[in-house]
Amino acid sequence: MSQSIQSLPGFREFFPADCAVRNYIFDSWRQVALRYGFNEWEGPVLEPTELYRKKSGAEITQQLFCFTDKGDREVTLRPELTPSAARMAAARQRDFKKPMKWFEIGACFRYEAPQKGRLREFYQWNCDVFGEASVEADAELIALGIDSLRAFGFTAADVAVRVSDRNIWNLFLQQQGLPADQLTPVLAVIDKWERDKPEVLETKLAALGTSRAAVAAFIEQVKADPAPFAPLLASLEARGLRDFVRIDPGIVRGLAYYTGIVFEVFALQQGMRAVFGGGRYDSLCALISDGSTDLPAAGFAMGDVVIGDLIKSTPAAAAKMEAALARSAALDAYVAVADEARRPDALALLQALRDSGLRTDAALTPAKLGKQFQSAEALKARAVVIVGSEFPEVKIKVLATREETASPVAGVPDAIRALAQP
Amino acid sequence: MSQSIQSLPGFREFFPADCAVRNYIFDSWRQVALRYGFNEWEGPVLEPTELYRKKSGAEITQQLFCFTDKGDREVTLRPELTPSAARMAAARQRDFKKPMKWFEIGACFRYEAPQKGRLREFYQWNCDVFGEASVEADAELIALGIDSLRAFGFTAADVAVRVSDRNIWNLFLQQQGLPADQLTPVLAVIDKWERDKPEVLETKLAALGTSRAAVAAFIEQVKADPAPFAPLLASLEARGLRDFVRIDPGIVRGLAYYTGIVFEVFALQQGMRAVFGGGRYDSLCALISDGSTDLPAAGFAMGDVVIGDLIKSTPAAAAKMEAALARSAALDAYVAVADEARRPDALALLQALRDSGLRTDAALTPAKLGKQFQSAEALKARAVVIVGSEFPEVKIKVLATREETASPVAGVPDAIRALAQP
Repeated sequence: MSQSIQSLPGFREFFPADCAVRNYIFDSWRQVALRYGFNEWEGPVLEPTELYRKKSGAEITQQLFCFTDKGDREVTLRPELTPSAARMAAARQRDFKKPMKWFEIGACFRYEAPQKGRLREFYQWNCDVFGEASVEADAELIALGIDSLRAFGFTAADVAVRVSDRNIWNLFLQQQGLPADQLTPVLAVIDKWERDKPEVLETKLAALGTSRAAVAAFIEQVKADPAPFAPLLASLEARGLRDFVRIDPGIVRGLAYYTGIVFEVFALQQGMRAVFGGGRYDSLCALISDGSTDLPAAGFAMGDVVIGDLIKSTPAAAAKMEAALARSAALDAYVAVADEARRPDALALLQALRDSGLRTDAALTPAKLGKQFQSAEALKARAVVIVGSEFPEVKIKVLATREETASPVAGVPDAIRALAQP
Repeated sequence: MSQSIQSLPGFREFFPADCAVRNYIFDSWRQVALRYGFNEWEGPVLEPTELYRKKSGAEITQQLFCFTDKGDREVTLRPELTPSAARMAAARQRDFKKPMKWFEIGACFRYEAPQKGRLREFYQWNCDVFGEASVEADAELIALGIDSLRAFGFTAADVAVRVSDRNIWNLFLQQQGLPADQLTPVLAVIDKWERDKPEVLETKLAALGTSRAAVAAFIEQVKADPAPFAPLLASLEARGLRDFVRIDPGIVRGLAYYTGIVFEVFALQQGMRAVFGGGRYDSLCALISDGSTDLPAAGFAMGDVVIGDLIKSTPAAAAKMEAALARSAALDAYVAVADEARRPDALALLQALRDSGLRTDAALTPAKLGKQFQSAEALKARAVVIVGSEFPEVKIKVLATREETASPVAGVPDAIRALAQP
């Protein structure tokens, strides 16, 4: 016998329990974004490869899930959402009041060897502010990012936001007497500050006319006196979120398109593992619209795999999720048929309960009452409504308390609703 | 100046207003499915081409959005959700109580010339019941399909479900003295009953040893005495949904995998345009699992483009959608800063409102009070909270009534919540 057809490597199958976890994460992301007055958008899953090849830097383009379509177009399953967001915002910015606060939750793809936490298909939540150059847009985004973590049950003991500003490295160039066009190569070295070996950093920085000691001293100088970050910190302080934030100029982010303040969130109790990040990208809209639209922008992206792992490994967050999943899995009622002659009446009641918005199920085919109760328990029903020979009187049995009451059939929807909202 | 980068032909960009319509449809689908006790799942967007090539029939495989990936695999952006559902259900059926009631909302793709209502990327809502061979599963699915339309505001005056059973055509073969293996070619002709010209149908049927008149007579015979459909109709009658249903053996559905009862929903006031359909496919799980799992199954799929068009062109459904969109677009409160010295207090209030679950926005940068009120109106805020020199007393102005009241800042979240739930 030949093999049955399996899914592709690096692609996930969400069975109902997995999908409930995914939806818990999506719902939380969406609710926090809506509380912050962000509006949801969605772009195409497939885009012209050109959108990424020129804009996103070498790291991401090597991993593109790209191919040639039947119409001979070079196309790519989107690796991230920001280039699509920038194109759409630039194209229609005249139609919207500024700032445009946009969010999206969508599938992204990359072609690389699948490994733990690195899949070929994953979801990202993107939050962006277009049309606002002030640092208050950065503060709004960082606050939204922190509050999304708080919504999952994380505290300042679990996560920290390390904030930097790519422009602050111009100050370093001045101090070192280096020309301003050295910014990009210097940032490329800083980006590997915590990953490259000291001697590698030393060699790279010497070639650029500076040294590892000079960079380390500059990082410490800014940490000790973060005056350039005062407006950002004041806004986060006023919002009561200052505890989550650490100034660290060493965080410059890898993507080519960042232009100003950048930030990255780390898990404090998990070896400073990166959770998500973002920053300002004031040049991208002009680049993608070929100069026709200049629109300041900033944003961040969070992935479902990393945050899902962090929730599961953080007891308070895991408990919060389990409680929500238990609530969302519950059925309001299960209609049991004790007398098959009454099946039409049971179906009418089933329909009435569903019509009134209650989540209700029933045995599709005749079964013993005990078996129907087992199904109701397995489906986590709050109550079983027993339709039998006493119809139009029925019995309502609350499964948690085993309490049983009689009710006229017309009163059942209200009785079940009262159970659902204690 | 060269062209800016556009999206690909046949792919949609959902700007916030478009995304709100999409989400209205998704939310409605999801709520109805949950009321019926269906559980959500999700499969990969990209699948092995083999999954569709062998299983779905010629019509769909010609339009596959297929390519060879970097690992030399033949892969396809899924054209539909049923094959993935069947694979997943078959693979894990031992872990679930029967019937398994599953639904999914996901992107699907096809490669064909884009035209009105025919895109290359679209969404489908799939609802399936696995592990239940009885006609009650078909009734449950048809009821769910009808109730999803009722949830959008359609009535039996707008839509009808035409129900058939592929097996009933075996009766026709018997009556005509034709061998049982003629079922598939006969069904292929019946599938084009309303689209092919009479002379084409006549030629095709003559070649199969029967005639157009014989088929027409059989269709009328079953319509006049739909005895084989009595159990299905009794279930739908008991649910109060009989008005929506018409028996019509001429509806046999194009897809190769259907095996029993099939149905298709039509828009009555729009030239009987097809809205969605489904049916029983008892052989597909065995086919996909290469015989290792035999699982009866039935399901239907509804697309977002067709239902979206039907909603917009049906006044009652359009009005219902507009009302829901207006509710979902509203902001609970807008915090206005009348005295910039009080901005930190305004930010603290903004945070408190958001923390308590209220959708709240504020001007990110200093602006005149009149301008802030314009923003609040544009964002459809219910109320503006004015933070000025009287702080910690603030003013709450309800935008609909222009009524203004003073409140201590600590009382604002409760006051705003009272406005949101009148």
